[in-house]
Amino acid sequence: MSLTEKPVETPERLAFYQKIDTQGFTPLWAVLSDIITPEPKSACVPNLWKFNLAKQWLLEAGGLITAKEAERRVLILENPGLRGQSKITTSLYAGLQLVMPGEVAPAHRHSQSALRFIMDGAGAHTSVNGERTLMQFGDFVITPPQAWHDHGNQTTEPMIWLDGLDIPMVSFFDASFAEGLGADEQAITRATGDSLARYGTNMLPVDFEQTRLASPIFNYPYARSREALYQMQRQQEWDPCHGLKMRYINPVDGGFAMPTIAPFLQLLPEGFKTAPYRSTDATVFVVTEGTGRSMIDGQVFEWGPKDIFVAPSWKWITHEANGEAVLFSYSDRVAQQKLGLWREQRGLA
Amino acid sequence: MSLTEKPVETPERLAFYQKIDTQGFTPLWAVLSDIITPEPKSACVPNLWKFNLAKQWLLEAGGLITAKEAERRVLILENPGLRGQSKITTSLYAGLQLVMPGEVAPAHRHSQSALRFIMDGAGAHTSVNGERTLMQFGDFVITPPQAWHDHGNQTTEPMIWLDGLDIPMVSFFDASFAEGLGADEQAITRATGDSLARYGTNMLPVDFEQTRLASPIFNYPYARSREALYQMQRQQEWDPCHGLKMRYINPVDGGFAMPTIAPFLQLLPEGFKTAPYRSTDATVFVVTEGTGRSMIDGQVFEWGPKDIFVAPSWKWITHEANGEAVLFSYSDRVAQQKLGLWREQRGLA
Amino acid sequence: MSLTEKPVETPERLAFYQKIDTQGFTPLWAVLSDIITPEPKSACVPNLWKFNLAKQWLLEAGGLITAKEAERRVLILENPGLRGQSKITTSLYAGLQLVMPGEVAPAHRHSQSALRFIMDGAGAHTSVNGERTLMQFGDFVITPPQAWHDHGNQTTEPMIWLDGLDIPMVSFFDASFAEGLGADEQAITRATGDSLARYGTNMLPVDFEQTRLASPIFNYPYARSREALYQMQRQQEWDPCHGLKMRYINPVDGGFAMPTIAPFLQLLPEGFKTAPYRSTDATVFVVTEGTGRSMIDGQVFEWGPKDIFVAPSWKWITHEANGEAVLFSYSDRVAQQKLGLWREQRGLA
Amino acid sequence: MSLTEKPVETPERLAFYQKIDTQGFTPLWAVLSDIITPEPKSACVPNLWKFNLAKQWLLEAGGLITAKEAERRVLILENPGLRGQSKITTSLYAGLQLVMPGEVAPAHRHSQSALRFIMDGAGAHTSVNGERTLMQFGDFVITPPQAWHDHGNQTTEPMIWLDGLDIPMVSFFDASFAEGLGADEQAITRATGDSLARYGTNMLPVDFEQTRLASPIFNYPYARSREALYQMQRQQEWDPCHGLKMRYINPVDGGFAMPTIAPFLQLLPEGFKTAPYRSTDATVFVVTEGTGRSMIDGQVFEWGPKDIFVAPSWKWITHEANGEAVLFSYSDRVAQQKLGLWREQRGLA
Repeated sequence: MSLTEKPVETPERLAFYQKIDTQGFTPLWAVLSDIITPEPKSACVPNLWKFNLAKQWLLEAGGLITAKEAERRVLILENPGLRGQSKITTSLYAGLQLVMPGEVAPAHRHSQSALRFIMDGAGAHTSVNGERTLMQFGDFVITPPQAWHDHGNQTTEPMIWLDGLDIPMVSFFDASFAEGLGADEQAITRATGDSLARYGTNMLPVDFEQTRLASPIFNYPYARSREALYQMQRQQEWDPCHGLKMRYINPVDGGFAMPTIAPFLQLLPEGFKTAPYRSTDATVFVVTEGTGRSMIDGQVFEWGPKDIFVAPSWKWITHEANGEAVLFSYSDRVAQQKLGLWREQRGLA
Repeated sequence: MSLTEKPVETPERLAFYQKIDTQGFTPLWAVLSDIITPEPKSACVPNLWKFNLAKQWLLEAGGLITAKEAERRVLILENPGLRGQSKITTSLYAGLQLVMPGEVAPAHRHSQSALRFIMDGAGAHTSVNGERTLMQFGDFVITPPQAWHDHGNQTTEPMIWLDGLDIPMVSFFDASFAEGLGADEQAITRATGDSLARYGTNMLPVDFEQTRLASPIFNYPYARSREALYQMQRQQEWDPCHGLKMRYINPVDGGFAMPTIAPFLQLLPEGFKTAPYRSTDATVFVVTEGTGRSMIDGQVFEWGPKDIFVAPSWKWITHEANGEAVLFSYSDRVAQQKLGLWREQRGLA
Repeated sequence: MSLTEKPVETPERLAFYQKIDTQGFTPLWAVLSDIITPEPKSACVPNLWKFNLAKQWLLEAGGLITAKEAERRVLILENPGLRGQSKITTSLYAGLQLVMPGEVAPAHRHSQSALRFIMDGAGAHTSVNGERTLMQFGDFVITPPQAWHDHGNQTTEPMIWLDGLDIPMVSFFDASFAEGLGADEQAITRATGDSLARYGTNMLPVDFEQTRLASPIFNYPYARSREALYQMQRQQEWDPCHGLKMRYINPVDGGFAMPTIAPFLQLLPEGFKTAPYRSTDATVFVVTEGTGRSMIDGQVFEWGPKDIFVAPSWKWITHEANGEAVLFSYSDRVAQQKLGLWREQRGLA
Repeated sequence: MSLTEKPVETPERLAFYQKIDTQGFTPLWAVLSDIITPEPKSACVPNLWKFNLAKQWLLEAGGLITAKEAERRVLILENPGLRGQSKITTSLYAGLQLVMPGEVAPAHRHSQSALRFIMDGAGAHTSVNGERTLMQFGDFVITPPQAWHDHGNQTTEPMIWLDGLDIPMVSFFDASFAEGLGADEQAITRATGDSLARYGTNMLPVDFEQTRLASPIFNYPYARSREALYQMQRQQEWDPCHGLKMRYINPVDGGFAMPTIAPFLQLLPEGFKTAPYRSTDATVFVVTEGTGRSMIDGQVFEWGPKDIFVAPSWKWITHEANGEAVLFSYSDRVAQQKLGLWREQRGLA
């Protein structure tokens, strides 16, 4: 016998299984090869969502329900292999959120970590822990676990961003807590920009003590991140599998910016085609700039600005940029690394 | 609206949902209160398995299938609320394994971490990474991720132990790898007892470098742990909720002995009744010594030596020992703490 | 007897001391109160060096010796209590370095960590590990241990900066290694600005692994640090003892930017007078902007732009700014904290 | 010019040096090659102290002064190259302490870390933080910084142990604090053996939080450490330079047992001759068992049981055991590693 085959079922065995079943026992050998697999075997499949269609439907939703009635007016991007589970990968959630001019998404907090990646519109705000930040295209914004947060749009345009959360992970660990503030907006107690200045300029307050796992920075502006990529690309050190790939960090410890979600920003130079790569962290990609295509598990996905696509665990992936392209992405790599589960493999170009 | 109520569904809305469903979109507001809950809401329920019955059926299984044919002859303890999922809690697995005299459970390895807690019999062996250890009652034995391991029984008595694994967690992260060695037993390259001497006596080899997350000790003998409890109990520092509760550590970093599973050993003095306690890590308890009862979410479970019971996430629990009692337990607390999800609450006695 | 008094010396005792002295023994009780003191007892004294005088003499030195002949043309700031020891505090060194137009200070490397704080001139360069940075007023520049470094001035003005090194500490631990490259300048292999972009924008390369203790950033530009102070001061959170005090960090781990030297930048709002403060890390202050005075152990030191002053271990200090002032400072706090020796005390305003 | 030669002194230069000297300035180039050396250049020299002579003189001291009058009756082992400085290496102190039957060394505490290595006698006690431990030959006992400690001898024999402290290091950092308790003995609040049981058996109390850098274990009994060496030597994995060398750890973090001093225990099998080795941490060796010789910087030192010898920084050392030998040793390696200064080199056998 082995890890990959099951023993033959005899009538005696089946009768035994039935008997022990009544007291909460079941034979391992009947399921072993299903639950300890030679390689990851996931229901998650590759998929791409076109932003234009998503935006059209979001705006339609804007006519059907208010942000306030919905608590959050979001269309979930459900993985076709995981329908009905509110998941884009086995462990992560993705949604597109719309806040219309004049609207507020009321203040609440929860155990779930959230990231926002700003897609469309400019200048609406999100408030976290008493500080308001204005959101611009490409900004990467964090809502740490149990931080009060509310969103508002005082501009004249609809604002759309991608929400990435660890909802399935928190559910899996039976650790969800949530509550509303009972008010549309929390009180603002710190000047806009204070967190970034205080924690995001390679200095920390002399007596600062870290009391939570998430980064104290909550807006990583695209203007700054993009400029850094621009500086670095002069060096022309392209990773065969990634081009130039950076991870957003928590400056307090150099780890990933969030405790459960690993966020990345990646530049593909003009015409670059990556070598095959796979890893155990299924990844959600957001096209920030440029056009191109990715091949995931043998399927080709053509992408343009703001499109979103997902690659499952342990499936080979290659990217190809037409002109220069920039991809934002997120996965559960930080969780897998902490737990000792993460693995990657590089293929031949 | 709020996190706990759902918006009313109108015909327009329902039609919209159907339309967007075709392209992998679904409205968050229809499910929000199900997936971000005010408190943990788990299908896992409290339960107790009597060892005597389990042993009887294990021995019966011993007549139905060999260890070799089964790969591992184990009866899974399935949580009544999670039938068909090979789980004792949402994130963890438990099984009782039998190795008959003269049998071998063949060498394999996998991403999943395993703990063994020795229940019945004495002197059978498990081999891990080239070292063989002899298992005695109460020993806590670790098989780290991807470590080759095989079990054998050269005694004249059946040997039974509890297996605790993170199978559901590894599945959830789509990160399972496994392979057989193609041989019953791995080669033995280190003397029995070497790991414990080398890593378990408050010294480490001067040039030792940690290359994995699990403890380099793989057998924590009960003789030593029990003696430590005996020494400490002279101090009579009883925690109202736990009596005297210790966690097994990895001496290389002081963290839990395993990367995904938190193991504990706990002494309840004679007649001690604990104050209510709850935490987000559902916990599997193994009665090592003594008799008593535990109330979990309002249900009372009477226990005696070697019985196994489970408490779900965030359900109040109290223990009461008749005479002195010792409980071994394990949970996913180490994973939850790394991810920033773990929470506990103490109640009034 | 006690820790503070010595036993009386009798003739018998003295004869005994002489006898055992021949074999390398000596009685502890005769020196105990000198070597284990109730409070720090340092030869280091407060002092201030006027920049204008230092600059005049540096330029005079420029006519007496070339950078190349001197290896480094530096005037050491010797603590008056520690003359002849090349120290500004017991554990640290400070010097002012001059590089004249057209000069090069040749490439070498050593175990000692160096910081540069740019005082006068603009646009000369220092090269570290294959990257050249242009130095501007107020920039904080690091030369990590064993990093090749050379300085050059291709501008038309003399360039002066403060060097802060851990020379006494490395000597104390008998751990000095040094060598010349045998060339004036090392080869340049990375674009100017690459390190700051790659490591200093709250992102890190996805596969970056830290192999040394010092920050991978080697120029912390004053333009950016000063702007952060400006942002934060809107919050008006003044620490009674420090005003607004930040520590430069290593983004890889959130620790101090250097393994043995702790660098700080501190803003004192207009007219602010600090409450008394003392700590065990003797500190070198550099006036970056503004005028004011500091009282150290009862002595008042009036300071203006670019002046340098030192406060010994455990002596009370207060600062008072006339207009707004900015102070750069450095101490051995990072070493003391790692070793468990650092202590601070706040006094009443 | 270079790091190793000094510029020629001209009359103009000498006049300039004199002038600037008045204001606390001095030229770096006149001292550079003395303070930044190509290799460590220490005044510390190799030396050996015979225990028998030391014991004879200690007992003689026992007749000249009481433990109480002396506060601690200790003969310092002064390095011949560092006379008058109360040092055995540049950064560390060693002394031999005698407590006569019926005597008490009164309770005090200080910033300095102390280790005791028990040499002669059996069963006297030391109390640390409310717990009393009985000292046996070969035990390694810790007094953490600022822990109250007192020693007493209720046996009928004189008790002698080696004291290893970081006195020079604490002095160098100007960070000494000390005070007496005003009583001979502190109150005993914990049972003997409690610390070892609680922290030293590969478990930790479930809610234990580390609040200091030193190990919570304060007696590492030789019986246990020696037994571990015995187990490990069956494996016959001899390091060419060290035989079988272990470092005592703090089980809370796996680091060295003390924040400033690195303690080791090392077995040399019968007739083993080590390959040359040098490192930047000058090391104090105590012969625990056996006889043999060590060559340090070309000098041969013959040693027998309880002799003590010292090897300076960066001097080649080899050991040769006649029969099996065990060496205890301590150095400042932990401090140097934290500061990034430590370096080692292996030579050819």
